[in-house]
Amino acid sequence: MINIDKIIECSSLISPYIHNTPILKSDSINELFSCEISFKCENFQKVGAFKYRGATNAILCLPKEKQKNGVITHSSGNHAQALSLAAKMQGIPAYIIMPETSSQVKIDAVKSYGGNITFCKPNLQARESTAHNVKSITRAEFIHPYDNEHIITGQATASYEVFMNSMNFDVIMTPVGGGGLLSGTALTTKLMTDSISVFGAEPQNANDAYHSFYSGNLVPSVNPDTIADGLLTSLGLLNFNIIRKYVDKILCCSEISILKAMTIMYERLKIVVEPSAAVPLACLIDNKDLFLNKKLCIIVSGGNIDLQNFNWLIYK
Amino acid sequence: MINIDKIIECSSLISPYIHNTPILKSDSINELFSCEISFKCENFQKVGAFKYRGATNAILCLPKEKQKNGVITHSSGNHAQALSLAAKMQGIPAYIIMPETSSQVKIDAVKSYGGNITFCKPNLQARESTAHNVKSITRAEFIHPYDNEHIITGQATASYEVFMNSMNFDVIMTPVGGGGLLSGTALTTKLMTDSISVFGAEPQNANDAYHSFYSGNLVPSVNPDTIADGLLTSLGLLNFNIIRKYVDKILCCSEISILKAMTIMYERLKIVVEPSAAVPLACLIDNKDLFLNKKLCIIVSGGNIDLQNFNWLIYK
Repeated sequence: MINIDKIIECSSLISPYIHNTPILKSDSINELFSCEISFKCENFQKVGAFKYRGATNAILCLPKEKQKNGVITHSSGNHAQALSLAAKMQGIPAYIIMPETSSQVKIDAVKSYGGNITFCKPNLQARESTAHNVKSITRAEFIHPYDNEHIITGQATASYEVFMNSMNFDVIMTPVGGGGLLSGTALTTKLMTDSISVFGAEPQNANDAYHSFYSGNLVPSVNPDTIADGLLTSLGLLNFNIIRKYVDKILCCSEISILKAMTIMYERLKIVVEPSAAVPLACLIDNKDLFLNKKLCIIVSGGNIDLQNFNWLIYK
Repeated sequence: MINIDKIIECSSLISPYIHNTPILKSDSINELFSCEISFKCENFQKVGAFKYRGATNAILCLPKEKQKNGVITHSSGNHAQALSLAAKMQGIPAYIIMPETSSQVKIDAVKSYGGNITFCKPNLQARESTAHNVKSITRAEFIHPYDNEHIITGQATASYEVFMNSMNFDVIMTPVGGGGLLSGTALTTKLMTDSISVFGAEPQNANDAYHSFYSGNLVPSVNPDTIADGLLTSLGLLNFNIIRKYVDKILCCSEISILKAMTIMYERLKIVVEPSAAVPLACLIDNKDLFLNKKLCIIVSGGNIDLQNFNWLIYK
């Protein structure tokens, strides 16, 4: 079980390899929402996402004799990039199973961080059998993107850094996809204080965490359809059990609010975020009354976006 | 004359009103250029630009009896926004003379910061006569955007903040338009140390500072044509005299390098910058050998850009 000592230990273990990311505030955003928001900018983290924390911790926690065989995962997103760079930093190989339909931008990113890519057909069976084959040849350790204790502990260090700076918040909010960041944040928060609420933020069009949380049963994501492409995945079991115990609310937002929130973050905070990272502010747009005069911390999950091909005009 | 004591005094005078902006680094940018770059992010400054420093200082340095009449300027850019908000923060009026052809985005920005706009025909004579009329009615104090000692001292505080954190640099580089930021940076640097070079960065298509610096005569800008629209203006006289004395080099860059530099800053630093703020990195692209294995600080001047209408594809 993850306790606060493990989170503190993890924070100092990974600190030589990660950025202690800055916290930004904007008077004009605060005026807009009549509340006080601190943005913990994990888009400035290495590989552009909080995922680098968990990947680094998972690798550092492997016994030396397992480390040398390397690590393996199937992902086409930020976890693949994070695991590739984290492995490279420790001088070990990372094997990444990616669907052959992955975009060139994502393939190039994983390659640039030194990941060894094996392509597979774009279905679950092909992904698992390919991973099995590569693993049996390499004996690499499989690192799940979120349903893994060391990953959750790593993601928990983002909120731990926030609280080392200040605990003067009413609410802390993160996006929820697989639940790695939300479960880690909930653990840090509730193990340190009773006075801060933890909210998860999810697109209406991919709201399996919302349904799971309020029904009490782990409900998988069915045909999720959102521009927040980091949040398409279903909640992990380990993550669900932590979220059920420690999270206070899960809020949902519309697609149009995600685009509005992105625009606000680009225009007023002057930061580049991916759609998934704008989901907490989008939930604030869609649930404004909940936050009036409150002190809120939002963890900005990542900034990996193909800007040249992004259509800003969808909502204008 | 501006000395280091005045810069230090100014820094503590304006510090309650401004952000001490973060300094960002990127391993992947450093690899790309084989040098070590620290980006001082004035795009995160209030109103999204370093101009807020100078405007705040100019207002705070006015005698109380002059302050109450307010301030006036003719500008349609970041100085207009900066002066409007700085005046509002001190509870005094700001009168902004803007050409009637200004974009709605710029008009809205000045209004949102509480500036009182008077429109004029888009020529120098109309601008000056309108400013004269408004000044004679209001008795407001005219605050020049850059050719003003208090403005220069204010802009000098950005590099002072950098040096309070570290002086371990070979070069510090800023964009140059009117020369407020470059002259302020040069003063701070050379009044504090002999071991850091100061470079100005300018678009080839608006390179009056380059010609002025190397000819020794103040040469005005002739038909400047660059996407770096904050750098269209000609160098001020006070600025030129400081630059001539304290700056080591002025470098130029192509338009295509400005777009490449912007892309690098968005994709790798994850920050929103206006084209003018990408000009120093563009000069690095076009003069790579000058910076090999050097420690460089770039002051990122601002982040005010109409992203929805920006054409990223110009160079692709």
